[in-house]
This record gives sequence, structure tokens and C-alpha cells, in this order.
Amino acid sequence: MKSVYTFDHILEYVNSSISTIKYHNQPQSLFEPITYILSLGGKRVRPALALMSYNLYKDDIKRVVPIALAIEVFHNFTLLHDDLMDRAAMRRGKPTVHIKWDDNTAVLSGDAMLIEAYKELAKIETEYLPPVLDLFSQTATEICCGQQYDMEFERRLDVSIDEYLEMIRLKTAVLLACALKEGAIVAGASAEDADNLYQFGINVGLGFQLKDDLLDVYGDSSSFGKRIGGDILCNKKTYLLINALADNTTREELIGWMNKTDFDESEKIEAVTAIYNKLKLKQKSEQLINDYYRQALSCLDKVFVDREKKKELYDLAGNLMTRIS
Amino acid sequence: MKSVYTFDHILEYVNSSISTIKYHNQPQSLFEPITYILSLGGKRVRPALALMSYNLYKDDIKRVVPIALAIEVFHNFTLLHDDLMDRAAMRRGKPTVHIKWDDNTAVLSGDAMLIEAYKELAKIETEYLPPVLDLFSQTATEICCGQQYDMEFERRLDVSIDEYLEMIRLKTAVLLACALKEGAIVAGASAEDADNLYQFGINVGLGFQLKDDLLDVYGDSSSFGKRIGGDILCNKKTYLLINALADNTTREELIGWMNKTDFDESEKIEAVTAIYNKLKLKQKSEQLINDYYRQALSCLDKVFVDREKKKELYDLAGNLMTRIS
Repeated sequence: MKSVYTFDHILEYVNSSISTIKYHNQPQSLFEPITYILSLGGKRVRPALALMSYNLYKDDIKRVVPIALAIEVFHNFTLLHDDLMDRAAMRRGKPTVHIKWDDNTAVLSGDAMLIEAYKELAKIETEYLPPVLDLFSQTATEICCGQQYDMEFERRLDVSIDEYLEMIRLKTAVLLACALKEGAIVAGASAEDADNLYQFGINVGLGFQLKDDLLDVYGDSSSFGKRIGGDILCNKKTYLLINALADNTTREELIGWMNKTDFDESEKIEAVTAIYNKLKLKQKSEQLINDYYRQALSCLDKVFVDREKKKELYDLAGNLMTRIS
Repeated sequence: MKSVYTFDHILEYVNSSISTIKYHNQPQSLFEPITYILSLGGKRVRPALALMSYNLYKDDIKRVVPIALAIEVFHNFTLLHDDLMDRAAMRRGKPTVHIKWDDNTAVLSGDAMLIEAYKELAKIETEYLPPVLDLFSQTATEICCGQQYDMEFERRLDVSIDEYLEMIRLKTAVLLACALKEGAIVAGASAEDADNLYQFGINVGLGFQLKDDLLDVYGDSSSFGKRIGGDILCNKKTYLLINALADNTTREELIGWMNKTDFDESEKIEAVTAIYNKLKLKQKSEQLINDYYRQALSCLDKVFVDREKKKELYDLAGNLMTRIS
């Protein structure tokens, strides 16, 4: 039996691969922000998924590193441009690129970073280049669509649950799914396995984002790494807010808080959280996360590989759903 | 002998190919700006060069259309983001994307457009995908570097001629060169021919940009399509301005005009043009354009193809150098 790497080993491998990426030195102001945002860390879940998916079938995980790096560089490019568009000042406890440098640097370094993602991807063996490139570009377009919907939702009060779930599918889930499927493609997995891994990724991704929304309200700020209630303060259309807006008993009070421009921050967070509590939205949210988790497991069950080899992916999915940060 | 298409035929073919590009319909606000900027027209020189280069060797120009489209979509993506960074209000007589929509739309539609460029490129036959993709990404990075230098030059008074020429090589010339070389690659041309066509493109590109700088001051506004003196008004570091700044007899007067915040526009244009005239910079510029033109011709001479087949490229180079718009 071929060896299965643990998630920790994979993660170490991902981080050491990321640290070897070299960019031009000049002009410094174009490439420094790329190194900067990549150095801020993050969970590295996406590149890990590409390697783990490949590792279901094969040992020599080095072969799939170009895909893992392309996906992580691409993901960080989206964070860089999203932070600019959302006027976010902080990312992982550090100033965002448009704050540390300026708006134009964020635009142009982001562009250069998207190109770097494609450069990494192009290092994959020629045989796999067409399907890997097609899925990557399709996914990249979907993520742009997701970000566009997310921004449009800011100006709307009538976002439906289905619209919200489609938005997070596009903005978050498809990249996890893409990582898994591309790992499988390069490993020579069957089309059926590749598709089941893709669907596993979609369900994990949806659960992952819903958990993120939940942690923003109900997490512990010291473990979450972000200020609790940030989404509430900026009226972000999360699963919780959309549900609360849809309920006639709380809609008016909620809109009152959303329209206030002069308020005590803790007071608003407390009041909106009380509305969520009254509607039992924490439980409703956890229920939905659990549904996606079970669907994810059922997709992974169908992947035609010894259960023992899939253990790390089962565990990772579980950890992402029950995480506290 | 295989048939050689005229430039006009190639151009018609390019325009009809561009009009067939289809994007997602939803979200509309993401894809509309892409269709909009592509519909504004332009010379379409870059895609034409890819087809003409291929046509030196082969007839079935359809094969190279993915490259032609990728390059034109990419070029328009750079215009979209450059206009945002430069805060330009007009492009080809129409409002720029960030004016017609908003800044965030310009960022995100631009990103989606860069991805679309790669999608077009990926349609090329798998055999040619690695070299075509590598050169495309390398060129794309160089163009980002060129834009970064261009922006940095805005804040500097000590830009040298060499720095300027390197900047326009990166920002303008490499994409023309890339189009020519990729057309040759897909046609199965020798590495030597492909490189000579690349160098032909670099020289044409440098001359092309210098001609653009010249037309901005000495052109006829009705044929040029842009307001004459625009570069002078915004103190753009052109070949003319950099030369005039380097001359001790005019430097002080010029800096005086550059520092003025309250001035009559026609008066500034007239005064700066008078400085250029005094230093005979029109002639100096035309001389340099002619040098690049001759170098371009010498590169094309070396391409191992019947002279008759190269006629359209010789003519195009000549037309770009002597153009009035």
C-alpha cells in the first residue's frame, strides 16, 4: 500500500513550497506586496486539498505542487483585490496592501499576482494542462461572479437564502472543489472520482463559509483572530442576517439597527445577537452546516479508494466544520 | 505558393472574431464592461500581427485566432485597469469603465477580463500550449512592470532616456512582439524566425509609442482622435519632456510650467511646445523613430520567408511609423 501523508505533513510541505516561490526583484513596489500577502499565512486549506486529493492515488505529491501553488496564489490575489474593493483595513492582523501601500499598488500587484498564479499552473505536465487550465479559469470566473454578487447584496435588503448560498458557492466553495478535482485529474483518477471529490469540496466549502459567518458572531475573539461582531457592524448579508430579515417579528428592529449611523458598537452587536438568539439562528445555522457536512461525507464515501487512505480528508472535513477559528 | 492575406482582410477577420466572443450573462454588471471596452474599437494591431505572422507560413489563419483574441482581450484589460489607475475619464471618445460604472466594477471586470484572455489562449492546440502560455504570461508580467515604472516616473524629475525606452519596451513593445512570435510558434516556424519576428515587434513597438508621444503634441486633433497636448497638461514623462528636462537651457522654464497649478491650458501647451521646438525635439524624435523602423526592417529581412509574403508586414510597419492617428 502506498503511503498516505498526514495533514500536518502536507501542510508543512505546502508552506515550504510557498516559501520557495521567487518573483522578479524589480520594480520592488510591484512584487513586494505579493510576497507580503503570501507571508501573512492563512490556513492553506486549498493547496493542502490539492495534494491530499492527489495523495489518495499516488505518493509523489511533488508532481501536483504547481496546482497547489497556483490555487494558493490565486486565493491570495482575490483577498488582495477584495480587500481593496471592500475598503478593508486589516487582513490577518496586519494592514491590507492598499493601506500599507496604496490603491494603485493593490490593483497592479493583484494583477501581477493573478498572472503568477497562471505561471505556476503552467508548470504542470503538458498532458494535464488543458483540463487543469480549463477548470482553473472556469473557477476563477465563478469567484469573480461570487464577489460581484457579494458586493451587490450590500445594497439589497431582499437577498434570499438561495441567492446567498449560491453566492458563497461561487465565492468560496468552488475553489476548494477545484483544488480537489485538479489533484485527482493529475493523479489519473476516474472522472467519477474526480467529480465526487469536486462535490465533496463544494459541500465542505459551503459548510466552511457558514461556519465562518457563525464564528464572526459566536466565536471567541482570541481564537477567531478577528474582532467578534465585525459582520454585524457592517451589516454584512450573512446567513444569520438574511434569516433575521426574513422574519416579520424581528425585521423592523433589525433594519432600525442597520440604518443607524451613530451607535455604540457593543450595543449594536449585543442587540443584533439577541435577535439571532431569539430566532435560534445559531442552531439553524449549525443544522445546515451539519447537513452540508453529511453530504460531503457521502460524496467522499463514493470515491473509489480504500477508506484508510481517505482518513485524512474525512478528518479535515470534520475539523473544518467543528473549528473554533 | 500559399495565399497571403492583406492587412485589410486580416483586420476584418479579427473584428468579426472579436464580435463572436460570448461571455456569461450574469451578473450583468461584471460582464457588460468587458463587452463595452472591446466594442470601443481600436487599431487591433496586436491580434492582426499574430495572424499575419502565422500567415507568413500557413494559410489556415483560423488556427491562431485564440492567440489573437487572447492578446486583444488582454490589451483591453490593461487599458481598463490603467485608466482606473491613471484616473482617465475618456477612452476612444467614450467614458472609461470606472466613470461609466465605478471603481470596484473596473477592478473586478478587469480581473474577469484577464481570466477571459487566458480562456481564449487555452483554446490553442495542446501541442503549442506550453510555449504559448509561457511567453504570454512572461509578457503580461512585463507589461505590469512597464505600467508600474510609468506610474513611478510621474513622481520623478530625473527619468533618463534609457529608463524611458525600457519602460515603453515593457509597457508597449513586448505585446506586439509576443503576438508576432506566438503566431510563428503555432505555424511551426524555426526558433530563429520566431526570434527575429519578436525583435521586429520590439522595434516596431518602440517606434509606435514614440510616434504616439509625438502625435500628442504635433498631431492633428481631428485625425488623432485625442485632444492635442494632453500629455503636456498632465506632465507625462514622454521622450520629448525627458529630453527637454535634460537640457539646462530649458529645464527651469519647463519645471516652472510643470509646477503651476493654476494656468491657461492653451498657454501651457503653447509654451511647452515652443521649448520642444527650440530644442528640435520633433526632429530628434523622428530620427529615433526612423532608427527603430530601420532596425525593424532589418529583423524582418532575416525572417526566412519569401519577401513577397512579408510585404504586408513591411507595409504595416511603415504605416505605423508614418501614421497621423
